[in-house]
Amino acid sequence: MGGALDPAVATGRNLVRAALDDLSAGARVVVGVSGGADSLALAAVTAFVARRDGYDLSAVVVDHGLQHGSADVADVAVRQVRSLGVPAVVERVDVGRAGGPEAAARDARLSVLASTGADAVLLAHTLDDQAETVLLGLGRGSGPRSISGMAPRDGLWRRPLLTVRRADTERICRASGLAWWTDPHNSDPAFRRSRLRAEVMPMLEDVLGGGVAEALARTADQVRADGTLLDQLAAEVSDPSDVPTLAALPPALRSRVLRRLALAAGASAAELAASHLAELDRLVTDWHGQQRIELPGRVSVTRVRTSGGTSLMFAATPVGG
Amino acid sequence: MGGALDPAVATGRNLVRAALDDLSAGARVVVGVSGGADSLALAAVTAFVARRDGYDLSAVVVDHGLQHGSADVADVAVRQVRSLGVPAVVERVDVGRAGGPEAAARDARLSVLASTGADAVLLAHTLDDQAETVLLGLGRGSGPRSISGMAPRDGLWRRPLLTVRRADTERICRASGLAWWTDPHNSDPAFRRSRLRAEVMPMLEDVLGGGVAEALARTADQVRADGTLLDQLAAEVSDPSDVPTLAALPPALRSRVLRRLALAAGASAAELAASHLAELDRLVTDWHGQQRIELPGRVSVTRVRTSGGTSLMFAATPVGG
Repeated sequence: MGGALDPAVATGRNLVRAALDDLSAGARVVVGVSGGADSLALAAVTAFVARRDGYDLSAVVVDHGLQHGSADVADVAVRQVRSLGVPAVVERVDVGRAGGPEAAARDARLSVLASTGADAVLLAHTLDDQAETVLLGLGRGSGPRSISGMAPRDGLWRRPLLTVRRADTERICRASGLAWWTDPHNSDPAFRRSRLRAEVMPMLEDVLGGGVAEALARTADQVRADGTLLDQLAAEVSDPSDVPTLAALPPALRSRVLRRLALAAGASAAELAASHLAELDRLVTDWHGQQRIELPGRVSVTRVRTSGGTSLMFAATPVGG
Repeated sequence: MGGALDPAVATGRNLVRAALDDLSAGARVVVGVSGGADSLALAAVTAFVARRDGYDLSAVVVDHGLQHGSADVADVAVRQVRSLGVPAVVERVDVGRAGGPEAAARDARLSVLASTGADAVLLAHTLDDQAETVLLGLGRGSGPRSISGMAPRDGLWRRPLLTVRRADTERICRASGLAWWTDPHNSDPAFRRSRLRAEVMPMLEDVLGGGVAEALARTADQVRADGTLLDQLAAEVSDPSDVPTLAALPPALRSRVLRRLALAAGASAAELAASHLAELDRLVTDWHGQQRIELPGRVSVTRVRTSGGTSLMFAATPVGG
């Protein structure tokens, strides 16, 4: 590590410091480590910041037990992190199947990290991960929400490397004398995200003339900023289930108010699709006698006349209904 | 054309009727025709609607003169349209080079169509065109604006087929006995849009599991609705160049207010990039003595102290400045 400080290392340290700028000395910080270059690089730059700013840093290596030899990978990762002077433990998790293998592994990992009781949990997502997330969101097509990508800071969760290219995390590992593990799934074409990385992104870079990952990340940032403001404006609408109120809202607000009403009534956020919201919208703006609308999560919606006028009523779908 | 009505034809007619629902009988409607399946299909379904609803319909075939034999293509297109009972003329245009060959051809075409004095001009963009526009916008990465795609209705311009797949326009042509021309540029890999169509979209469909074109179009619709509302809110901000006012705005509004100020001062909309807006934003939110900022279009921006407080001043860049 002698000689001049690698610029990628300097950038990483600054980003981690900024990501933790609301914490005081002594705060408990946990970094989630997979053993890949991204999370080992994050552990390395965070180790420096934690020593300097007095955070109580530890690392959790989550072993999903999904691949043969995953326990060995976790052990190597723990030893690498300890070589940085950072305490590290391995947590074995049982991964369900809900939402597909990637989503299930992520949920299990986040649940273990949340249970550490840390004041902040650092996640190692990079700009490349963000770009892939936006493309996956585009494929889902549930609108701005699906292409908003990951937030750099979301309560407990912090993603200081979200503006850093994946290749730079490898530079940080080399500069820090860390050996990283390359997930064979990363080149397994059965995984959508792997194929986005290996096939789609290079082709987009070629066809669109480069800079696509940065462009996707920048777009996600702006779409997320727009969504934050519009969600907030939607939350401020008074008497939101009143049909004339809804009908008078601009479409961008009406769709968000309808989404809020549906979720508040217990509809499933994961399954609520653009088509459901369009159907709800027609109940307001294009009503010609439609009966009950069913939303995922066993929620029914009807137009009802009350003494105050016409409202949407969200209710649990009756059993057998 | 005998037998049952093709469902694609029925859909097309309904869409055209809805796109013209603000016009009265006798209104002048022009359809822009290239000779491709999309615009011939549009001419066919519009011919029916115009006869039934009494519009004064004509077609303009724009010959860009860019390809060998383009005059022959235009002549064939005119004959096809006349076979529908619709008057048609060829307009030769000179295409400049500004913004690349595709953009220059589009600008020349729109300018000819706008000069017809029609009450409405129908353009034949399909859902596939919309999806490609969103991907091109993603590659530019100038945020929500760049992925908002094309509006179904924008003053004079109407795009009734924006929810129709390109393949369905071929069905409409077959059902209407029309022969269409396939632009060899559509498979010329030198053109970005052609490569998106031929290479990127099929790969995305494969990797993301289908429905990508629809997902992109749906996302564009919602992003455009969000942008419309936010642009409107930005236009309503009073005293927009006052620095404390700007600093107190949510980021999604501040970026739009700054963009409006820059354009009003004469900055070039085509060249104003996300990086310029970020620099302007720092003049408000992260000022540490920055001097004049230069925007494309020879516009300079400075912070100035006035009797009323601190403002941004937008001015023409002095010659030699």
